[in-house]
Amino acid sequence: MSSTEPRRALNINNINPHVKTARYAVRGELAVRSEEYRAKLAKGDGKDLPFDTVIAANIGNPQQLDQKPITFFRQVASLLENPGLLEHEDVLTNSLGYKSDVVERVKYLLKEVKSVGAYSQSQGAPGIRESVAKFIEQRDGYPTSFKDVYLSNGASSGVNTLLHIICAKPETGVLVPIPQYPLYTATLALLDARVVPYYLDESKAWGTDLQGIRESYDKAVAEGTDVKAIAVINPGNPTGASLSADDIKNVLKFAAEKSLVVLADEVYQTNVFIGEFVSFKKALRDLQKESPGKYDSIELASLHSVSKGMVGECGHRGGYFELIGFDPEVAAEIYKFISIQLCPPVMGQCIVELMVNPPKEGEPSYELYKKEYDDIFNGLKERAYALYEAFKQMEGVECQEPHGSMYLFPTITIPQKAVEQAKKEGRKPDEFYCFRMLDATGVCVVAGSGFGQKEGTLHFRTTFLAPGTDWTGRIVEFHKAFFDEFKA
Amino acid sequence: MSSTEPRRALNINNINPHVKTARYAVRGELAVRSEEYRAKLAKGDGKDLPFDTVIAANIGNPQQLDQKPITFFRQVASLLENPGLLEHEDVLTNSLGYKSDVVERVKYLLKEVKSVGAYSQSQGAPGIRESVAKFIEQRDGYPTSFKDVYLSNGASSGVNTLLHIICAKPETGVLVPIPQYPLYTATLALLDARVVPYYLDESKAWGTDLQGIRESYDKAVAEGTDVKAIAVINPGNPTGASLSADDIKNVLKFAAEKSLVVLADEVYQTNVFIGEFVSFKKALRDLQKESPGKYDSIELASLHSVSKGMVGECGHRGGYFELIGFDPEVAAEIYKFISIQLCPPVMGQCIVELMVNPPKEGEPSYELYKKEYDDIFNGLKERAYALYEAFKQMEGVECQEPHGSMYLFPTITIPQKAVEQAKKEGRKPDEFYCFRMLDATGVCVVAGSGFGQKEGTLHFRTTFLAPGTDWTGRIVEFHKAFFDEFKA
Repeated sequence: MSSTEPRRALNINNINPHVKTARYAVRGELAVRSEEYRAKLAKGDGKDLPFDTVIAANIGNPQQLDQKPITFFRQVASLLENPGLLEHEDVLTNSLGYKSDVVERVKYLLKEVKSVGAYSQSQGAPGIRESVAKFIEQRDGYPTSFKDVYLSNGASSGVNTLLHIICAKPETGVLVPIPQYPLYTATLALLDARVVPYYLDESKAWGTDLQGIRESYDKAVAEGTDVKAIAVINPGNPTGASLSADDIKNVLKFAAEKSLVVLADEVYQTNVFIGEFVSFKKALRDLQKESPGKYDSIELASLHSVSKGMVGECGHRGGYFELIGFDPEVAAEIYKFISIQLCPPVMGQCIVELMVNPPKEGEPSYELYKKEYDDIFNGLKERAYALYEAFKQMEGVECQEPHGSMYLFPTITIPQKAVEQAKKEGRKPDEFYCFRMLDATGVCVVAGSGFGQKEGTLHFRTTFLAPGTDWTGRIVEFHKAFFDEFKA
Repeated sequence: MSSTEPRRALNINNINPHVKTARYAVRGELAVRSEEYRAKLAKGDGKDLPFDTVIAANIGNPQQLDQKPITFFRQVASLLENPGLLEHEDVLTNSLGYKSDVVERVKYLLKEVKSVGAYSQSQGAPGIRESVAKFIEQRDGYPTSFKDVYLSNGASSGVNTLLHIICAKPETGVLVPIPQYPLYTATLALLDARVVPYYLDESKAWGTDLQGIRESYDKAVAEGTDVKAIAVINPGNPTGASLSADDIKNVLKFAAEKSLVVLADEVYQTNVFIGEFVSFKKALRDLQKESPGKYDSIELASLHSVSKGMVGECGHRGGYFELIGFDPEVAAEIYKFISIQLCPPVMGQCIVELMVNPPKEGEPSYELYKKEYDDIFNGLKERAYALYEAFKQMEGVECQEPHGSMYLFPTITIPQKAVEQAKKEGRKPDEFYCFRMLDATGVCVVAGSGFGQKEGTLHFRTTFLAPGTDWTGRIVEFHKAFFDEFKA
């Protein structure tokens, strides 16, 4: 082809190679196929499919699966969108069930943001960041400044921001739990930095194994990796594990020893069924109190989101991170980085404010809020245990008791004949299993290989958000048929 | 310092150097100082300041400056947030002024997104993308598929996505207009790719100068740059220029000749006072019709947003881009890239739908919509001309007649004594001027150096969004005092 002949500028071989390297299975080929099935059924064209609904158990998307939003949040949001309704307070309260604290909150938030259609400061509206700071103070019992709080576009953009700052060169490495939510490995791939995997201990309910972390670190350093940070997801995704205060302190001590930034992904902090959530911030401040001066150098970034918990407002893309112990010059670069994308969605910022500052006992909207919150919590827990019980019945499946988050991550054993068939189709064995499950049941889960897993083990991740128990039965039935088909 | 002594992981010298290199003046030091003044005044502490309000003329943020949102949009949005209100249709219509087309639209959108609190598909809700496709078809008279439409988080995230795909190596270059909205240079800095500047022609109302583009391209190629794309902002930011169909076709022909992706930033497409907006898509399809086969290889990405125009809903972070002529394998990588950040804010997506599919003549909400739309348009035009007239009076200031967008970008001449004082303070002369303006008047503009300008010229960018004319007077007065102070 001559150089003057018209041709496309971009092809798969000359685009950014780091984009090509990135993998993000949560919305990959399986998810795309499940959407095709969904569209087919919606058009009435799905007569040939062996199921009549698609169950998106691949992603923590509560409201897509019929979780009802919290009434107080949405009443406030509706008035933020149309503040003109405040002129009809009598109609709101007498005919539409809005309580006085809804109206008050709307007035407060409008004072802070002026309009949900206006850009806020890059870091988020100061008044909303003050609410977040108060929430963290009350949760942990230690002071927090709104100046250290950065509102974000869900927690994902926060992770993206922090990794952008940390990753200085191709040798930069970040300790990432395996299995992990693939945002971490995908973003590190985009940044041409190194994933330093550390394996969670399935035999100890997917807890952190400090010895394992130390070995991963040493191995990476020996290979020339400049390890700069450690990411911890607590409660775990995909594992559901909830870490003890001691586990957390051990991670912090290790971070202090090796000068690592700690990235604490705490978006599931209210999704805890066993034990109680301890924040990295609290554990750090406790450590600092116990050993004055010894842990002052630790840099911790703690992330939270409106997407999970009982809020489940992921479509609103709200979140925040708090920076603790960062050099002010580094924080200034973080500010500049986020300002290039202007600001997080302002309604998402307002939902953050509602999450961290919900109706309190004695306030008019409290009773309903409390009931809705508890019902969602109990529903999640019930479904988690129902699924756990189902997995216990299934041949070759082992699953940890549900501890928290929105996921179960069972181990599966796959018959040799199925492994061979997978190989023929160019798929990993767990992927093959998940595709078969989708094709047979309409239930979309994610293969363990999408999160990373120990060599020689196979898993899948499923949410327990979908209502009802019918779909759990579909999985049990599929699994039996799959084993019957492929057993020697 | 021994290696075991605790120390921070990150400092200004070891973080990502590309973040440090990036510059984004629109929200830089001037903007930060103006926010400090605003906070001081709000607290009642501003008695020592020579002004009583801060005017944010540094950023196109209409609703911060009292532009009222379009009623139809916000009525729909309020019901999307609280769909329970649909059970009180009588109250909505009889007591609250909601028309039937508001309710219908809400039902349609809820069918598409299920809940504004749920994640959508990564590319955006299909039904909303279909509305966008229809809008583009009607605007340009050529077919569009919803499969080529990608909803985004404002237009900024679209630019970020596209540059991420294009920038494959440090030698990759992108032709960027100078002056330009600094999102382009900042993102290229983050990606460690090269800006290939081409200068807009101030003497021809800031039009594109093809000869200049060709010279910039040749120079870059001679220096070893692999030029892969050309960005065009039409109507211009910061210049306000609106390109003719011929100018656009010339850019497209050049792109075809050199195999360049065309990034058409068309977020100001409805902000046109002189002439009419021609989209790159239409110009491309016209060209392809005129010369069959000759321009089939062109890759065009056209971006739009809810932030500007008469919509002004920038806080909602809605936008889209259409891909034309891209290799499907490349589009698949774009899909994967955006899926890592899950999806754009769903309410922002809904506002996109309302923008591209507003009430039509004969529909119940049309009359009010039309009136609000026209009032905003006329208000912007009036203020643009008032500011233009003010600049004409000012010594050493020259300004092009307003053509479009939301900005004026006057040339300023600065007395030698002021240039020397600026140098003493470590500032560029135009920055020095803008800081002095802010300190004296509370009006925050952006120095031309933040957008790039021809060597030896000085400018500033101001929006014409702020209501009233008082602040224009403040600028005139300041300018006179500044000249009196520094004139030889």
